[in-house]
Amino acid sequence: MRLKSLREEVLDANLELVRRGLVLYTFGNVSGISTEHGLVAIKPSGVPYEKMTASDIVITNLDGNLIEGDLRPSSDLATHLELYKKFPQIGGVAHTHSEFATAWAQARRPIPCFGTTHADYFHGDVPVTACLSEDEIASDYEKNTGIVICRVFEKLRFEDVPGVLVAGHGPFCWGTSAADAAHHAVILEAVARMAYYTVGISANAEPISNALHGKALPPEAWTHGLLRTGNRE
Amino acid sequence: MRLKSLREEVLDANLELVRRGLVLYTFGNVSGISTEHGLVAIKPSGVPYEKMTASDIVITNLDGNLIEGDLRPSSDLATHLELYKKFPQIGGVAHTHSEFATAWAQARRPIPCFGTTHADYFHGDVPVTACLSEDEIASDYEKNTGIVICRVFEKLRFEDVPGVLVAGHGPFCWGTSAADAAHHAVILEAVARMAYYTVGISANAEPISNALHGKALPPEAWTHGLLRTGNRE
Amino acid sequence: MRLKSLREEVLDANLELVRRGLVLYTFGNVSGISTEHGLVAIKPSGVPYEKMTASDIVITNLDGNLIEGDLRPSSDLATHLELYKKFPQIGGVAHTHSEFATAWAQARRPIPCFGTTHADYFHGDVPVTACLSEDEIASDYEKNTGIVICRVFEKLRFEDVPGVLVAGHGPFCWGTSAADAAHHAVILEAVARMAYYTVGISANAEPISNALHGKALPPEAWTHGLLRTGNRE
Amino acid sequence: MRLKSLREEVLDANLELVRRGLVLYTFGNVSGISTEHGLVAIKPSGVPYEKMTASDIVITNLDGNLIEGDLRPSSDLATHLELYKKFPQIGGVAHTHSEFATAWAQARRPIPCFGTTHADYFHGDVPVTACLSEDEIASDYEKNTGIVICRVFEKLRFEDVPGVLVAGHGPFCWGTSAADAAHHAVILEAVARMAYYTVGISANAEPISNALHGKALPPEAWTHGLLRTGNRE
Repeated sequence: MRLKSLREEVLDANLELVRRGLVLYTFGNVSGISTEHGLVAIKPSGVPYEKMTASDIVITNLDGNLIEGDLRPSSDLATHLELYKKFPQIGGVAHTHSEFATAWAQARRPIPCFGTTHADYFHGDVPVTACLSEDEIASDYEKNTGIVICRVFEKLRFEDVPGVLVAGHGPFCWGTSAADAAHHAVILEAVARMAYYTVGISANAEPISNALHGKALPPEAWTHGLLRTGNRE
Repeated sequence: MRLKSLREEVLDANLELVRRGLVLYTFGNVSGISTEHGLVAIKPSGVPYEKMTASDIVITNLDGNLIEGDLRPSSDLATHLELYKKFPQIGGVAHTHSEFATAWAQARRPIPCFGTTHADYFHGDVPVTACLSEDEIASDYEKNTGIVICRVFEKLRFEDVPGVLVAGHGPFCWGTSAADAAHHAVILEAVARMAYYTVGISANAEPISNALHGKALPPEAWTHGLLRTGNRE
Repeated sequence: MRLKSLREEVLDANLELVRRGLVLYTFGNVSGISTEHGLVAIKPSGVPYEKMTASDIVITNLDGNLIEGDLRPSSDLATHLELYKKFPQIGGVAHTHSEFATAWAQARRPIPCFGTTHADYFHGDVPVTACLSEDEIASDYEKNTGIVICRVFEKLRFEDVPGVLVAGHGPFCWGTSAADAAHHAVILEAVARMAYYTVGISANAEPISNALHGKALPPEAWTHGLLRTGNRE
Repeated sequence: MRLKSLREEVLDANLELVRRGLVLYTFGNVSGISTEHGLVAIKPSGVPYEKMTASDIVITNLDGNLIEGDLRPSSDLATHLELYKKFPQIGGVAHTHSEFATAWAQARRPIPCFGTTHADYFHGDVPVTACLSEDEIASDYEKNTGIVICRVFEKLRFEDVPGVLVAGHGPFCWGTSAADAAHHAVILEAVARMAYYTVGISANAEPISNALHGKALPPEAWTHGLLRTGNRE
């Protein structure tokens, strides 16, 4: 079995979504990349989380061709691949339909940075993509989802904001590893929930000043796969 | 004991509502049909979920006559029977008072299709029935509940939208089997919850375009009892 | 030890509040009455729920004098006693600070009857008391709380609406027994939560018609301690 | 190992935040002081709660110098120290990012006293600090956080309101001991949640009258480390 430790990390990152209450049934998927081998390990489709093992994790190349595995890769694979190709420093991608982040995606409103919990992880708003056109939906929906995400990051550094809301769909997050990507997905849900409560208390709540934002991971951290540690503990 | 495997499936579908946090005390009920025998298996009335066994499941015919069982059938039986008679391709019906779906039913507002989580299961709005008249309430309330549901589906395909909100009451869902009906009840609650948050973030949130809707189960799937598998995993 | 079975029922009714997530720390209290003996059994003050035993339950008479027990009775005893004196058919009283019922009490708005879940247990609005005057607060706050509750029921039958919201404080419920009172407290919280969601979806949501209301327990049921069974199961 | 019982109390107070669902990952921190020794015991940085032991707790003096321990103290230490210096009668400080209290802090609105649950612990509004200036953020952010908190209490008694919301950040609470501080953090979150629901039901909800407020702990209670016991049990 190739890439054993990557498979195990990807399995554990997928299970982290379950442990943190982010998934219903088989929703959600996390992948990790071995840049050395140019290979991606991703959750299989159709396997319940409680039965999933490291050998169920599917290995593909960056063109999405199956390299190892008996199962189909997650249906969102093509979105993950676009992100790996556009953001070569990232080590993992996590996608969920977690309820509060999805609600902001459905309302097509960026999540304002209302406090330090948000600012320690996401610098400024968590943005929303444009809606896909009918053509983009009809052909290669998953790949085009990746492309509209990347379009948002033409004006934004992916290192500064390791997540995005796909309009009418849900969040994608990334990080220096599969574990880091899943961690960001968990934090994003908490941030989305608190932002929801914040606008419920004060519809005109103001984002915090830029000065309060934590420091972004330096570019070399992404290259070397360093995990960000929590700033507020 | 007749229809043993149907009883077991109906028991398990009822317990799925408990496992997913959709019921309080003895609320809720799921039934399944054997079209071959023209018999319906439904949750008994007055038995706590934690003590319920397959032999407690009550068997009736489509006229509601008790065929096998020592217990009374669920008080909502007559509603289930109307649905089986009107939608002969369905294999199961699930009714709950799950809190967010019930809140939409109480507000008498259809649940708009705000995202792909919704669109993968329900094509367009989840509709609300008309209110029952005083006469319809006074005589045969449960049967009339079935009739107002069916009236909604004169202009809508039951295969496209496997669920409905009964005004001032709560949701009914159906599927190719009792398990599929319960699955739809769980998804509907998640969809109702996310739609609630969505309108909280943006009171004027717009439904997604038709192009983003998943493909409905083909008519033959309903006939053959195929389970839909999740599209977003 | 006197009134052993009443003590055990009162203990279990108090623990039901814990099992259903209605209490934080030592909040909440349930009592039961033996009309035969003119004695009330109530939760002690200052004992954590996880250590509480039947022998910790305190027995008092209707004047609030300690008859048996080494502990102080719950600080809300005087409110319970007013209810027993005014509503002699009831067998139990439950008080909580459960979060949604308390929020309606804090907003000083009656809970409208938006659906059948509510109507099966509470006929019409769950009312709110008047605010206590400064004098009523300063002297005998707990007894005066009972008196303002009873004032609401001069125009309402306690059998029709087995619960009330004390303005700026929280809910009190009653029933044919301590278990029934606790059951009503659990249902009230669910009803309060769904009503909260309902007004969030539609600020102008309308109550259901009177015709949809379930039938109240007949007066003799209260006298004979019969438990109402769920209507929607 | 010095201050063994203080370390154990501080460990347990930190774990209380976990047991009550107030923390995500390693968020949050509680400290306790030995006024006799002029030493503070605080949660270490970077240790998961599930592995934390009493020997991991870090001991510093009131200048923040490490006295005993192999780990770094919580990054919020300087805020805790400001509170100990300004409020010498307190025995413990607790900081969380609990979701509802943080939402009020993010909305920069004080939590109104809507009911007796609030009034039994916090006399009047739970206040919000001013926002820190750019300079206060850039140099010694944590210490300056303590200073803006103390500024609020120039016009308010810390014994009357044992907690505060730091604007755009989250709550800090204190008490007669580390356990009491954590207890106040748990109560504050419940109070913040019910206040959120209250304004959702009635945007113009009114605070309760002063007469309904519980009695504050007498000043000597703070000096002698007495725990307040719940008033509503």
